[in-house]
Amino acid sequence: MKVKFGSEIKEFQSIWYDETGIIKAIDQRKLPFLFEIFEAKTIEDICLAIKEMVVRGAPLIGVTAAYGLVLHSNSFQGTTILEFLNYFDKGVDKLSRTRPTAVDLFNTISIMRKTIDRNLTIEENQNRLKEKADAIARDIVFECKKIGEFGNELITPKIKNIMTICNAGALATVDIGTALAPIRQANSENKKIVVYVNETRPRLQGARLTAWELYNENIEHYIHADNAAGYLIKNNMIDLVIVGADRIVLNGDTANKIGTYTLSVLCKEHNIPFYVAAPLSTFDLTSKTGNEINIEERAGSEVREAISIENENDINPKRRIIHHIFSPNINPAFDVTPAENITGIITPKGILRYPYQKTIKKLLNTQ
Amino acid sequence: MKVKFGSEIKEFQSIWYDETGIIKAIDQRKLPFLFEIFEAKTIEDICLAIKEMVVRGAPLIGVTAAYGLVLHSNSFQGTTILEFLNYFDKGVDKLSRTRPTAVDLFNTISIMRKTIDRNLTIEENQNRLKEKADAIARDIVFECKKIGEFGNELITPKIKNIMTICNAGALATVDIGTALAPIRQANSENKKIVVYVNETRPRLQGARLTAWELYNENIEHYIHADNAAGYLIKNNMIDLVIVGADRIVLNGDTANKIGTYTLSVLCKEHNIPFYVAAPLSTFDLTSKTGNEINIEERAGSEVREAISIENENDINPKRRIIHHIFSPNINPAFDVTPAENITGIITPKGILRYPYQKTIKKLLNTQ
Repeated sequence: MKVKFGSEIKEFQSIWYDETGIIKAIDQRKLPFLFEIFEAKTIEDICLAIKEMVVRGAPLIGVTAAYGLVLHSNSFQGTTILEFLNYFDKGVDKLSRTRPTAVDLFNTISIMRKTIDRNLTIEENQNRLKEKADAIARDIVFECKKIGEFGNELITPKIKNIMTICNAGALATVDIGTALAPIRQANSENKKIVVYVNETRPRLQGARLTAWELYNENIEHYIHADNAAGYLIKNNMIDLVIVGADRIVLNGDTANKIGTYTLSVLCKEHNIPFYVAAPLSTFDLTSKTGNEINIEERAGSEVREAISIENENDINPKRRIIHHIFSPNINPAFDVTPAENITGIITPKGILRYPYQKTIKKLLNTQ
Repeated sequence: MKVKFGSEIKEFQSIWYDETGIIKAIDQRKLPFLFEIFEAKTIEDICLAIKEMVVRGAPLIGVTAAYGLVLHSNSFQGTTILEFLNYFDKGVDKLSRTRPTAVDLFNTISIMRKTIDRNLTIEENQNRLKEKADAIARDIVFECKKIGEFGNELITPKIKNIMTICNAGALATVDIGTALAPIRQANSENKKIVVYVNETRPRLQGARLTAWELYNENIEHYIHADNAAGYLIKNNMIDLVIVGADRIVLNGDTANKIGTYTLSVLCKEHNIPFYVAAPLSTFDLTSKTGNEINIEERAGSEVREAISIENENDINPKRRIIHHIFSPNINPAFDVTPAENITGIITPKGILRYPYQKTIKKLLNTQ
């Protein structure tokens, strides 16, 4: 992704394995106020990065977990392959407890676990794990590129105003993004598009991260309070909604950032196409319907507080209390959009259409 | 309304005419962090109070405008009744340009204008205007009490969880409130209710004002991001939604705080009763449908910034930039909920039911 530093533009991925054996990631807690690189040297650093949302976005959580298992495996001090497997599984346990909803975490951990071959040496397995993590990261970028190409076909000359929620961009993946991939592709072809960015309370990923990506790419966009989505959709100001996903189950029910379900209902009411974009790692092969999805309840302090700065000259972000200091908060981080509200699912292998049972099974079998 | 100061509880109205000829109002920009009284000595002070949202809420805007015209009339320096009328109308012009959507402003100005009798002396007219403003303020409180009684009938034993948006409480009126009136009444009868408060971005009137009122009244409540409304309604956690109004036109279409329309669509989708509560001053006798309502677009800085404090020990509120500093914002302050999405309108004379054309006309004719 492009990142502007004054008049200079640099290319970044949201995460990378540094030559020195350290995992580096853009610290998303501080954007857009500060651009800082978070360094992870241990699996504990990785778990903190996922829990505290230094990195977030389902595909990126998956990639980060893969690299966490590389760091963990490389820190193994024992001698036998059995000890190595036990040690590996302790890392798996730690990662599994970080965040419950994004299935990419569990899918990627499972792929990494299967990469271990008991017939190889520990060092050979360590190398295999590193290669696999790199491959997972590379695949996500490739899949996002394909999502961009397929999704771009939806952006016909009649489609100009596109709404999104949260950040399903390069920052949510490794590069390019899921919901933002068709937007990037359309922009690269000079299609005239305008992006309406739900600010995405409580953590403001739309306003802080998506808007920052669009700013860096010079794509026209407006941030609005989530409350304004109904007004915009009702007044024919939106032609298409594209969102990301944290978990898509076998019938097509989709968990995504809290507020997504509401957008899907508004689109249904006004006959606006509502698309989900996701790589293969976001499909949950074991859950039949959305009822089986574990929705994370995060700290109420996220609602009570916001990341802010005093003014534009004071670029040091802090968490500020913006709310009533006496009242409790409810803070579900995700909601589930039923398959029937989803016009289509943009995948790296094409756009699936409702009903999804057969097409999702086919998609995953041919993976 | 009750206001807690430590262990002490005091009674307040949101606005009052001080013996010394000053209008005093709770400064709603600073709640819940600071409880401060704003003092208005001139119509300019009053216009600022309305524009900058020292006072807000349609009925309170109406009452504040009435008192503004009292201050203005009392500052008249001329001699003839014609000069007095001209001078009065300059005040009307200033007030009319403060905020466009809440019809109470225009209705109340019109009532005050009609109060002037050319056959009386200037001093007699000044006294009449003061008496009329007091009567308008008293009537609003009485009407809110009646709204509470009628609305309370909706809160049957099966109704426990009530959602609201923005602040339609004592702070939006003079006391008691509109949407909060049935809640206050139900609470006074020891009904077990829980209020779910949409924080109401961008200005957070739900989290800052409604939650503060409920806290002061010891009514159980939770603040949530507006994005969580769909999740709560979909998961059967809400039995009833009650909102206020900024303008109800002749067919029942209702302008209210941005985000209200979305709630009405969610309620329709899930068959949850959706009620509007309003005094007579909020009805617009001249507009036939919601298409005629002028929706205020407020500064984008409201979306980019939030009122916040550094921490609980630093009780001095400031506006903090919580958003991307490069991106433009869209900030409509209201949306229009079509009459067919409204289960009923709770008025001081009873609950109206869809279709509203006849019942609204009858309501206003018998005023």
